[in-house]
Amino acid sequence: MQFGLFGGAILHLGTQRHHDAYLADTIAGRLLGCFAMTETGHGSNVQALETTATYDVETGELVVSTPSDSARKDYIGNAALHARLAVVFAQLVVGGEPRGVHALVVPLRDEDGNVLPGIRIEDCGRKIGLNGVDNGRIWFDDVRVPRDALLDQHAEVREDGTYFSPIENPDRRFFTMLGTLVQGRVSVGGAGINASKVALAVAVEYALRRRQFGAPGSGQEEILLDYGLHQRRLLPLLARTYALHFAQERVRTDLHAVFSNLDAPEHERRALESRAAGTKALGTWHASATIQECREACGGAGYLSVNRFDALRADTDVFTTFEGDNHILLQLVAKGLLTDYADEFENLDQLGMMRFVAGVAVDTVIERTSVHKLLDRVRDVLPSGDPEVDADAGILDTSYHLNLLRWREEHMLAGVARRLKRGMDDGGDPAAVFSHVQDHVIGAARAHVERLLLESFVDKVATMPDDANKASMQLVCDLHALSTIEADRAWFMEHGRFSNARSKAVTAMVNELCRRVRPIARDLVDAFDIPREMLRAEILGA
Amino acid sequence: MQFGLFGGAILHLGTQRHHDAYLADTIAGRLLGCFAMTETGHGSNVQALETTATYDVETGELVVSTPSDSARKDYIGNAALHARLAVVFAQLVVGGEPRGVHALVVPLRDEDGNVLPGIRIEDCGRKIGLNGVDNGRIWFDDVRVPRDALLDQHAEVREDGTYFSPIENPDRRFFTMLGTLVQGRVSVGGAGINASKVALAVAVEYALRRRQFGAPGSGQEEILLDYGLHQRRLLPLLARTYALHFAQERVRTDLHAVFSNLDAPEHERRALESRAAGTKALGTWHASATIQECREACGGAGYLSVNRFDALRADTDVFTTFEGDNHILLQLVAKGLLTDYADEFENLDQLGMMRFVAGVAVDTVIERTSVHKLLDRVRDVLPSGDPEVDADAGILDTSYHLNLLRWREEHMLAGVARRLKRGMDDGGDPAAVFSHVQDHVIGAARAHVERLLLESFVDKVATMPDDANKASMQLVCDLHALSTIEADRAWFMEHGRFSNARSKAVTAMVNELCRRVRPIARDLVDAFDIPREMLRAEILGA
Repeated sequence: MQFGLFGGAILHLGTQRHHDAYLADTIAGRLLGCFAMTETGHGSNVQALETTATYDVETGELVVSTPSDSARKDYIGNAALHARLAVVFAQLVVGGEPRGVHALVVPLRDEDGNVLPGIRIEDCGRKIGLNGVDNGRIWFDDVRVPRDALLDQHAEVREDGTYFSPIENPDRRFFTMLGTLVQGRVSVGGAGINASKVALAVAVEYALRRRQFGAPGSGQEEILLDYGLHQRRLLPLLARTYALHFAQERVRTDLHAVFSNLDAPEHERRALESRAAGTKALGTWHASATIQECREACGGAGYLSVNRFDALRADTDVFTTFEGDNHILLQLVAKGLLTDYADEFENLDQLGMMRFVAGVAVDTVIERTSVHKLLDRVRDVLPSGDPEVDADAGILDTSYHLNLLRWREEHMLAGVARRLKRGMDDGGDPAAVFSHVQDHVIGAARAHVERLLLESFVDKVATMPDDANKASMQLVCDLHALSTIEADRAWFMEHGRFSNARSKAVTAMVNELCRRVRPIARDLVDAFDIPREMLRAEILGA
Repeated sequence: MQFGLFGGAILHLGTQRHHDAYLADTIAGRLLGCFAMTETGHGSNVQALETTATYDVETGELVVSTPSDSARKDYIGNAALHARLAVVFAQLVVGGEPRGVHALVVPLRDEDGNVLPGIRIEDCGRKIGLNGVDNGRIWFDDVRVPRDALLDQHAEVREDGTYFSPIENPDRRFFTMLGTLVQGRVSVGGAGINASKVALAVAVEYALRRRQFGAPGSGQEEILLDYGLHQRRLLPLLARTYALHFAQERVRTDLHAVFSNLDAPEHERRALESRAAGTKALGTWHASATIQECREACGGAGYLSVNRFDALRADTDVFTTFEGDNHILLQLVAKGLLTDYADEFENLDQLGMMRFVAGVAVDTVIERTSVHKLLDRVRDVLPSGDPEVDADAGILDTSYHLNLLRWREEHMLAGVARRLKRGMDDGGDPAAVFSHVQDHVIGAARAHVERLLLESFVDKVATMPDDANKASMQLVCDLHALSTIEADRAWFMEHGRFSNARSKAVTAMVNELCRRVRPIARDLVDAFDIPREMLRAEILGA
C-alpha cells in the first residue's frame, strides 16, 4: 500500500514536482499515504468511478466531490487511521467537459493526524484478515486542492482551463495510467505463491512425522505421507508451487526489463501486463486452495492458530480479489490474446472487443493459432494401434506435455473467436452473447496461463546442469504437467486428443509420480529456503 | 459438546445410576461436561488411545493415567475453563489384562471451578474459529475414581476384578460403543449444510443487487447474476445445497427410527452410521467450498466481517475434521459397502477388511453390483446413431441420471474389490496394497454417497403435488444431477458411458439449466427460510 501503490502512483503518474515533494518522505515512512481508487459501487469497473475532480478556473483549484454513497472510496488501506495524503482517482472535469478518470493528490490529515475539513473517514471494521491494515472509507465534500495536485505524467490541466494529454484516445490514456501500476499485481501474486510454500512446508513436515493406523502387523502406525491419498493431496500442489515460482521469476524479470527501458515497445508492456495478471490469478487461487488442503491435512492441529494456517489463510484470502479480481484479470488476458495486443487493444471495452474480434480479428486468431499444424505434432506422440498396450507411450515426454497445453490454448481461443463472431453476426444482444461465451473466455485465458507456467518450468530445467537436482526438478515438472493435464482430461477426450485408455494412463502415472516424489518431499520444501522465523508452527517444534 | 457428546455418552454408554446422577443437571446446564476422546497422538485411530484406566481390586477404584505427552487429551471442548466432569476414553485394564477402549466419568473441577488434584489442564489457545469454545488439553496423574464411574452399558467391571461384556469380540464392542454416538456426526453435517444456505442467501442477494460493467449501450451496468460465469459459480452450489438438505432430512428420519426402536436390526444401525458418515463428509466439504466461493463472489465486501463470511468460514472450517475426518469417514463407508455390513463388519481392521474382501467378499460384491444388468439400462437411454445429432437425447431424464450414478458406484466398488484381491493374492505388503488402492476406495465411497444424495432429492420431488413448486424443484434436481455428472464426465468417458459429444452436451445443458434457474434464484434462497437474525449481513442492508 505505502510503497507499491501510493508511492508507485506518485512515481509513475506524477512528475518531477510530485517526486520532489513526496518520494523521499514516502520511502522513509515519514509521509504515510493511501491509494483511493475503489468505490463502494465500483470495484472492477474503474472507468465507472463517480468521484469527480472539477477544475475551477476562477481559483485555479480542483474541487473533489463524492456525489453519492456508492461513490465513497472503500476498502482503502491506510485510510482509517494513518494516511496524511491520498492519491485519489476521480472523473476529471475541465471546462465543463468530462475527461475520464485521472489521479490527483489530496491531503487527508494534518501533521497531528486530525482529519481535514470537508473530508469524512470511516473505518471498514473487522475483516477476515489483514487487520493490521486500517482499511477505511472516504467521502469528499467539495475539497479544494491546487491545480498541480493532478498527477500529470499523462495529462495536464493548464491554468486557463485547457486540458492536454499526449494520448488522445481517452480509453487508451486510462489503460496506460493503470498499466504503470502493474507491480502491485506482481507483488500480490508473489506473496500468494510464498504463502503456499509456507503452508506446504508445515503440512509436508507434519505428514512425515505423524503416524496413524495401518502398517498391519508392524506394531507401529504408518507415516501419513506413505498413504497414497495423502501423497495425492499434497504432492501435486507442491509441484504446482514450483511451477508458479518459476513463472513468477519470469514475470519479475520481464518487469525489470520493461521498467528499466523507457523505450520498451507497447507490445512488450502489454504482454507483461497480461503475464502478470494471469500469474497473479492462478497464483492467488493456488494459495487459497493449497493453504486449505494443508490445513485439513494437518487435522485438528491445523485448526490451532499456533500452526499458522489461520493467519496464512485469513491474510491471503483477499488476494483473489484485490489488485484485480481474478476472473476480471483472466478476461483481460483473453482480451489481449483475442486482439493480439493490437493498437486498438487499450481502447476496446467489452462491446468493442467483441466487435473487433467478430470483424477483423477472427480470421487472424484462427490463423495464428494454426490448430492443424499442432494437431499433427500432438498426434505424433499419441499411442497408435492397441490402446491398452501403448497407452503409456511417450507419456513423460515434456514436448508432448507442452504440445498438449499449446493445442488446448489455441483450440479454445479459436473457438471463442468463432462463437463471438457467430453471436454478433446473428445480431444477438451483445450482453447475452458475452454471457453465454464467458466461461469459454475464462477457460481460454486459463489455458494460456497454464501453458506459460509449464513453459517457465521447462525453460528453468533446461538451464540446469546435468545432475541430481536437475533430475529431481524434471520429476517435479512431470508431476506438475501431468496433474495439470489430468485435471482437464475430460476436455482432451472430448476433443479427440485422448483415448479412454490414455486418459486412465495419465491418472495412473500421476499416482506413480507422486510415489516417486515422496522420497524427496522434504528436500523439496527445504529447498524453498523459508526463513526460520516464517516457519514458527508449533507442529514443527519451532 | 455439552448435549450431543457429553450428554449423549452418559445416555448411551451409561446405565440408570449415571442417568440419575447426571442427565437432569446436564440438560439444565447446571453440570457442564466434556468428551475426552481424542489424544494428541491419536485422532482418527481411537483404538490406539494410550490413556489407561486400571482397576485396583484392593480399593475398588479405577486409576486413570496419561503415560506420555502424545497421550494427553487434546482439542477437548469445554475442558479449558468450564467442564466439571469428563467422559474419558481409556484403555481399560482389569486383572492386568487389557480390555480395549472404554469410557468412564472423571471429575475435573470442584463446585468452585478449581481443577482437582492429579489433573492438569492447558488451553489449546486461539483457533481459526469457534473461539467461544474453550478447547483444552488434559493430563491425568493416577487419578482415582470409584468402580461405578465406568459407563457400563456394554461392559462392566465387578468388584472382585472380573470383567464382563455381553459383546464378546473386543473390536465389535468398541464399534458398538462408538456407533451410539452417531448423532454428533449428524449434527455437524446439518450445521455445515445450514451454513451453506446462509452463505448462498447473502451471495445470491448481492449478485441480484450489484451491477458491474457491461450491458453495452444500455447506460446501466449489468446485474452480476446475469453473467453466465456468475451463474456457474453460484447456482450449481445452490442446487447441491438442496440435494444435501433432503439427504440430511433422510438421515434425521433414519436416526429417529433406529434410536426409537431398541430392536432395530444391526444391519439398519450400520446403514445409518454409514449414511450419516457420508452425508457429514460431503456436507461439510460442501460448506467449505460454498462459503469460499460466495466470499469471492462478493468481492471486497465479502472480506468484511460484517458480511458474515468471516465467522461462517472460520467456525465451520473444522467440520471437515472433527466428529471424524472426512476421508476416514469415507473409508468407513467403503468398508461397509465392501463387506455389506457382514457380521464380521465391526471387528475388521484394515488388514482384516482387505483379507475379507479378497476372500469371501469379492465375488459377492461383484455379483451384488451386477454391472451387466445396469449397463443395459444405461445404454437404453444413451444416444445412438450420429452422436452430433442426438447428443441431447434423454439428457434430462431423471432415471438416466440415477442409473449413471448407480452404474458408476457399482463399477467402482467391483473394481476396488478386484484390486484388493489381486494385490493380496500377489502377496503384496498389505499397507502398500492399500496405499495404492486408497484413492479408488475413497472414490467408490464418494460415488455411493452421491447416489444417495440424488436419490433423496428424487424421492422428495416424487412426493410433491403437481404444481409450480414441483416444477422448480425438478429443475433444481436436474441441475444438481447434471452438474454432479459433469464433474466426473471424464470418468464416464473413460468407462464408455459417454461419447465425446454427449460429454460436451452435458456441459452445455448445465449452462442452460443455470440460465433457467436464474429467474427463481431469489425464491430458492428465500425458501431456506433462514431466520432474519441469522442473515444480518450488511450487504443485505440488514
